[in-house]
Amino acid sequence: MPDLRRDPVMGRWVIISTDRAGRPRDFIHHEPVRPASTGLCPFCPGQERLTPKETLAYRPQPSEQNLPGWTVRAVPNKFPALQIEGDLGREGVGLYDRMNGVGAHEVIIETPDHKDTLADMQPKHIEDVLWAFRDRMVDLRKDLRFRYILVFKNHGQAAGATLEHTHSQLIALPVVPTSVMAEIEGCRAHFQQKERCIYCDIIRQELEDNARLVTDNPEFLCVTPFAPRFPFEMWILPKRHAAYFEESQKTQFDLLARILSEALRRMNQVLARPAYNFILHTSPLHEKTGDFYHWHIEIIPKLTQVAGFEWGTGFYINPITPEESAKFLREAEI
Amino acid sequence: MPDLRRDPVMGRWVIISTDRAGRPRDFIHHEPVRPASTGLCPFCPGQERLTPKETLAYRPQPSEQNLPGWTVRAVPNKFPALQIEGDLGREGVGLYDRMNGVGAHEVIIETPDHKDTLADMQPKHIEDVLWAFRDRMVDLRKDLRFRYILVFKNHGQAAGATLEHTHSQLIALPVVPTSVMAEIEGCRAHFQQKERCIYCDIIRQELEDNARLVTDNPEFLCVTPFAPRFPFEMWILPKRHAAYFEESQKTQFDLLARILSEALRRMNQVLARPAYNFILHTSPLHEKTGDFYHWHIEIIPKLTQVAGFEWGTGFYINPITPEESAKFLREAEI
Repeated sequence: MPDLRRDPVMGRWVIISTDRAGRPRDFIHHEPVRPASTGLCPFCPGQERLTPKETLAYRPQPSEQNLPGWTVRAVPNKFPALQIEGDLGREGVGLYDRMNGVGAHEVIIETPDHKDTLADMQPKHIEDVLWAFRDRMVDLRKDLRFRYILVFKNHGQAAGATLEHTHSQLIALPVVPTSVMAEIEGCRAHFQQKERCIYCDIIRQELEDNARLVTDNPEFLCVTPFAPRFPFEMWILPKRHAAYFEESQKTQFDLLARILSEALRRMNQVLARPAYNFILHTSPLHEKTGDFYHWHIEIIPKLTQVAGFEWGTGFYINPITPEESAKFLREAEI
Repeated sequence: MPDLRRDPVMGRWVIISTDRAGRPRDFIHHEPVRPASTGLCPFCPGQERLTPKETLAYRPQPSEQNLPGWTVRAVPNKFPALQIEGDLGREGVGLYDRMNGVGAHEVIIETPDHKDTLADMQPKHIEDVLWAFRDRMVDLRKDLRFRYILVFKNHGQAAGATLEHTHSQLIALPVVPTSVMAEIEGCRAHFQQKERCIYCDIIRQELEDNARLVTDNPEFLCVTPFAPRFPFEMWILPKRHAAYFEESQKTQFDLLARILSEALRRMNQVLARPAYNFILHTSPLHEKTGDFYHWHIEIIPKLTQVAGFEWGTGFYINPITPEESAKFLREAEI
């Protein structure tokens, strides 16, 4: 059973998950092993037996579970960081706090096509990937042990992807990650002072100001944030106030797919198809954040060598202004 | 002038420093350029004219400034993230806050020997490196614009080092980084509840428990933390309560050099000389943290591929327990 441990000073919870590695030599060769581009990819159609049984699959024509015929497929991670069975087993260890590493860790296989990438897909297909996020979230939030569902994507080896076949990941956690908590608290403080959502204020200012706007449509906008940690960092925000991604209106998924596709294609054009991470920031489950929190997506191209002290300090140096980044992205020919 | 910007939700300050790069193509090739091991290294003796003028140099025999003869030398970073001249120019931009990127960014060249590494040096020489940190901090804290001094080391390309010749860095900031602030607040909360320093409590528990102890001496201990973010993460803490590194007793520097040397050699033995980051966590300047904060050093071997979502969430998955890491480190033959 993985172990969830809390740093007593920072309040930061960490998963100790020892299923994957354990001896020092496992850490000595740093590069993750990539599968051959041909051959046995566990995410390709026909290889369904290589993954745990699917938790979701969209099949335009009726076809059997765990067999080809799907367009988007979700499966438990074969090497999960957390384990779905068991109780939380919260306990103190002297000064420290720990609990069992209970949670869900799933992979959303975005397409049957091994060579496709999210940026190259038709918006209609991206929409289905977004629906898969939503459907898995709606299913998992029924489990009252979970307090946060993290949806993210590591694209490319430099961004942490270990398998080439395009996929996203979902982790359901029994605790709220500290950065999410800090975001929530920042929003709550603004609301207490002004009775307004801070992201709604940001959206108003960005749409007026225009300097950091990459693109927008009737429901969403894509901006480079005012204080970006990374070069060409982009945020996609819904124009309508909403705390929970999974409660989006049906009509919004189409426009979200379109703006996400456009943002990724602009990034690919300007930066020659970089590795990137994409993180869905949405409200913790079962919390009354509806007034003051505003879900959004953060896209972080993996461009600069990360100086590790940034993890230790929350302190970032960015060599390009967001106004310049936005200009390059806006003017990219796609 | 670099720009310091505050994220309005997270409260996180970011430096926008555009001196080094600006066009998208600067980001496309990710690997930093390494100098040839021979040839013009700006940190080697005889090349002093390639760096800005020194702010400190230890010269066992009297010799001229900015010429060979030094054993440890500090110079301003040639491509500083922050600029030493100017006022803070704090201002609001609509919803947002910014100020001028005023600060110091220095390099501490740890040895004249291009091939040496911190782990291979005699403890006596490491002691001089620690004195150099202290002396630069004592000098820079006189500047009342600065609120935090960050000392860190990126060793090896994978950890963010762009020059091979072993060196540390120092950044004096007009703001306190958010993670430092979170650490301070965590300590303050514990003190308010118990009237005790939380790190003193941690030290007591670790010395009793022994499971995560790597090594200790009369003044310092080296442990793997209870909730480590990274495999083989190590902390070095002074046994005596102290908030400010730069106010350490003279006799402590010898024992700190010895335990740091031992920790690095144990890490090198177990992990085949990995890239690593080392971060000095010390109190913000001019703040009354004396009762509840406790300075320490965090050492983070760069072993795993960083899944970028960790930056976005403060959420870490660690594949080895700190008890196992500590055992390997403790039992290493050095």
